[in-house]
Amino acid sequence: MKPGSEPKGIKVKKSQDLSEWYTDVLVKAELADYAPIRGFMVIRPHAYSLWENIQSYFNEILKKRGVKNAYFPFLIPDSFFKKEAEHAKGFAPELAYVQDAEEGEKLALRPTSETIIYDSYSKWIRSHRDLPMKLNQWCNVIRWEVKQTKPFLRTREFLWQEGHCVFASEEEADEDMRTMILEYQAMARELLALPTLVGRKSKAETFPGALRTMTIEALMPDGKALQCGTSHNLGQGFAKSFNISYKGEDEKDHYTWQTSWGFSTRLIGAIAMIHGDDKGLVLPPRVAGNKIVIVPILFEDTEEKVMKKAKELHTRLASCNPILDDRPDYSAGWKFNEWELKGIPIRVEIGPKDLEKKQVTLVRRDTGKKESVSEKDVGKRIAKLLDEIQQELYEKAEKFLKSHIDSASSIKELKEKLQEKKIVKVYMTETPEVEEKIKAATNGATSRLIEVVGKEGTCIETGKKVKTIAYFAKAY
Amino acid sequence: MKPGSEPKGIKVKKSQDLSEWYTDVLVKAELADYAPIRGFMVIRPHAYSLWENIQSYFNEILKKRGVKNAYFPFLIPDSFFKKEAEHAKGFAPELAYVQDAEEGEKLALRPTSETIIYDSYSKWIRSHRDLPMKLNQWCNVIRWEVKQTKPFLRTREFLWQEGHCVFASEEEADEDMRTMILEYQAMARELLALPTLVGRKSKAETFPGALRTMTIEALMPDGKALQCGTSHNLGQGFAKSFNISYKGEDEKDHYTWQTSWGFSTRLIGAIAMIHGDDKGLVLPPRVAGNKIVIVPILFEDTEEKVMKKAKELHTRLASCNPILDDRPDYSAGWKFNEWELKGIPIRVEIGPKDLEKKQVTLVRRDTGKKESVSEKDVGKRIAKLLDEIQQELYEKAEKFLKSHIDSASSIKELKEKLQEKKIVKVYMTETPEVEEKIKAATNGATSRLIEVVGKEGTCIETGKKVKTIAYFAKAY
Repeated sequence: MKPGSEPKGIKVKKSQDLSEWYTDVLVKAELADYAPIRGFMVIRPHAYSLWENIQSYFNEILKKRGVKNAYFPFLIPDSFFKKEAEHAKGFAPELAYVQDAEEGEKLALRPTSETIIYDSYSKWIRSHRDLPMKLNQWCNVIRWEVKQTKPFLRTREFLWQEGHCVFASEEEADEDMRTMILEYQAMARELLALPTLVGRKSKAETFPGALRTMTIEALMPDGKALQCGTSHNLGQGFAKSFNISYKGEDEKDHYTWQTSWGFSTRLIGAIAMIHGDDKGLVLPPRVAGNKIVIVPILFEDTEEKVMKKAKELHTRLASCNPILDDRPDYSAGWKFNEWELKGIPIRVEIGPKDLEKKQVTLVRRDTGKKESVSEKDVGKRIAKLLDEIQQELYEKAEKFLKSHIDSASSIKELKEKLQEKKIVKVYMTETPEVEEKIKAATNGATSRLIEVVGKEGTCIETGKKVKTIAYFAKAY
Repeated sequence: MKPGSEPKGIKVKKSQDLSEWYTDVLVKAELADYAPIRGFMVIRPHAYSLWENIQSYFNEILKKRGVKNAYFPFLIPDSFFKKEAEHAKGFAPELAYVQDAEEGEKLALRPTSETIIYDSYSKWIRSHRDLPMKLNQWCNVIRWEVKQTKPFLRTREFLWQEGHCVFASEEEADEDMRTMILEYQAMARELLALPTLVGRKSKAETFPGALRTMTIEALMPDGKALQCGTSHNLGQGFAKSFNISYKGEDEKDHYTWQTSWGFSTRLIGAIAMIHGDDKGLVLPPRVAGNKIVIVPILFEDTEEKVMKKAKELHTRLASCNPILDDRPDYSAGWKFNEWELKGIPIRVEIGPKDLEKKQVTLVRRDTGKKESVSEKDVGKRIAKLLDEIQQELYEKAEKFLKSHIDSASSIKELKEKLQEKKIVKVYMTETPEVEEKIKAATNGATSRLIEVVGKEGTCIETGKKVKTIAYFAKAY
């Protein structure tokens, strides 16, 4: 079989079976591949380039915010987890350990680094002059998931950043928590064309060991929410258990206030699931590694001239990091499919007719819209189109999100609205017990975030009057 | 005690006790800190910024060479190591495993990723059109060292890059091996001001599972060699054990030829050890995160004016990523010591007298040389000085290296020259047995690299005529 004839299309429609569509796209678009160990994955270059662009964007934010990158050990003494009781309880089921380490203590593979980092902070922080201390690390973490895993969305190993900041006061910690979750939301919007809801987590969903957690949540096409990043005000719990204190200007010792915040390679899954279509991936231009692909249309008699022009364009459009697909063994049609599958935002076709008319043909990946543009204007036109694509992808996703937020005033109604793939607002008494009951009644929906409103309403579970609205959805 | 009076100097002279000087500098200059687990370390922001600059430099090289970044699982099935016998034997003593993984197979913490990556390659490579395949990953690795550990130079966890390329022919693999080791040498020279010797490893020192290994070796002030990067032609051993083959243009199946190459955070240790002095670190400007530090000299009556000028300079010199040390509680002298300890290449002082004369004072970290330069020329002068410092650090280190290469024609002479902290060239029959005997006779010196020469000489161990020269030194 010639390579030009190998079928490489997606097996099912996105609307038919999102889960199968998703994994099929990931593998065929070469974002990910299965690993030989259950729950693990290979992040292929096409996906890793997205992660690099996310890193590069976020490193600028870190710099602006005075946060420095560092690296802490991958292995954590088990006793560290035990110091902060809530934290220990939350992570215990997911910890994996090194076998027979001779140190006399069990060593855990890091699932998150609060404890190992705060051990260092307790040595480094002495005076109010050492505050604030703001560090971040980019690393791999291991969480021995028992739930069903799914590439990018839930895996036993993933890559992430975790920021860990120390402040003198609760107000500063609260401000940092808010600032960073808003930075996450802005990044999702600006870079990934991903609209999210931002808010506080309920007590039941708060990070183990934290005082308050804020989250950004995206809504997937199947009505499941995807937590895309969280930011925690850790209060003084870790400061007290790891003895992080500073001598204030008042010459007295005070415990610090701390935050931590993180997002992960899960974002790559969100991009694929939100923007993709039946032909494969659709990458938002700003996060795409290659913004355009140049495909020369080759016939024997004009091949040389067309290739020369294609190479010229490749050089001229270098700022778009273009792919020049000049592989001789593959048909143009096969190449079109390949790059559509991989989601390259714009295809630039150049054939003998284009050459005659001193033009090129541009094809948008998101809409399939085709246009001719004169050679001399091509750079400007592409820049404009890329902006338009970015904008329209966001608007489309935002419209979907907004049209899928609804509210309910009873458990029955909540269940109906969840069936309609919506994220549903309900009045709820904010206790883990009440939330657990609603979860059981809805076959697993959880509160994704909490809003405190002025107007009282009736809790759908207890019937009590409350001012707390919870957004319910099933979640990845 | 006021912060201005806290002593923070290095306890011992570099020439007195290199080992103690080294660890003292690492901790006090805040490059590294000890971790709560033996053999692990914390990489603090000051060191991590060096690693980021190394990554950024090398990512450009990768791009130029058509190598793409990816990420493979951290855990590796134990059976994978067993597939390539030499590889298995080489790494067995250093493997750590996950406890009680329920998968029915032992899972190792990655010490290097040949096996897990080549498992994927065996799925991805089908045709000659898939070649060459060139991937790299930046990651952490774990080697359960039994030797004495030393921050950066030998730790149980380190960060590195590992490139893994697949070719159709031995010639291409050999060329890639050579190209990449020369890129490493160029990076050490251009970015780190680190002169190295480049050559092939002896059979005894070849990477487990490789056909040929090339290395770059630096010489530390105590006469010990430091392997700074290696590049391997893996031959077809892994291709055969992992079944990586392609259908050639001849329509027949062929095994591939492979390379792997890597360098690690060990390079940070090399920078510290080679360039540092009794005052602390000396960072080569190109790899330094902050090229300059601006220290305003503050007196009550002129403080406002001086600070204004310092801030102006801070903005003007942004391309040097300057630190502006405007901390009010610290004396100028204390600040000078602090930034000298941390190795910032140039200190920019601005005081009331400078202000009057419309000048600033520049102080080179490497030589301590002070000069005044008019305000308007300061940017240009700093750029020139940074280049000079970079150049002179390299020349100084190169002079040291060259003057410490010697040769010997007997074991006795070899031992004497090693005592003089030299790297010593001897004729040697290239077998692991002969090398083992020389190692035993010299109390642990090993061949760092091999040179094949035209002129025959007498093997210092066997007395046979050979054309192989081995460079002997003890090594970190």
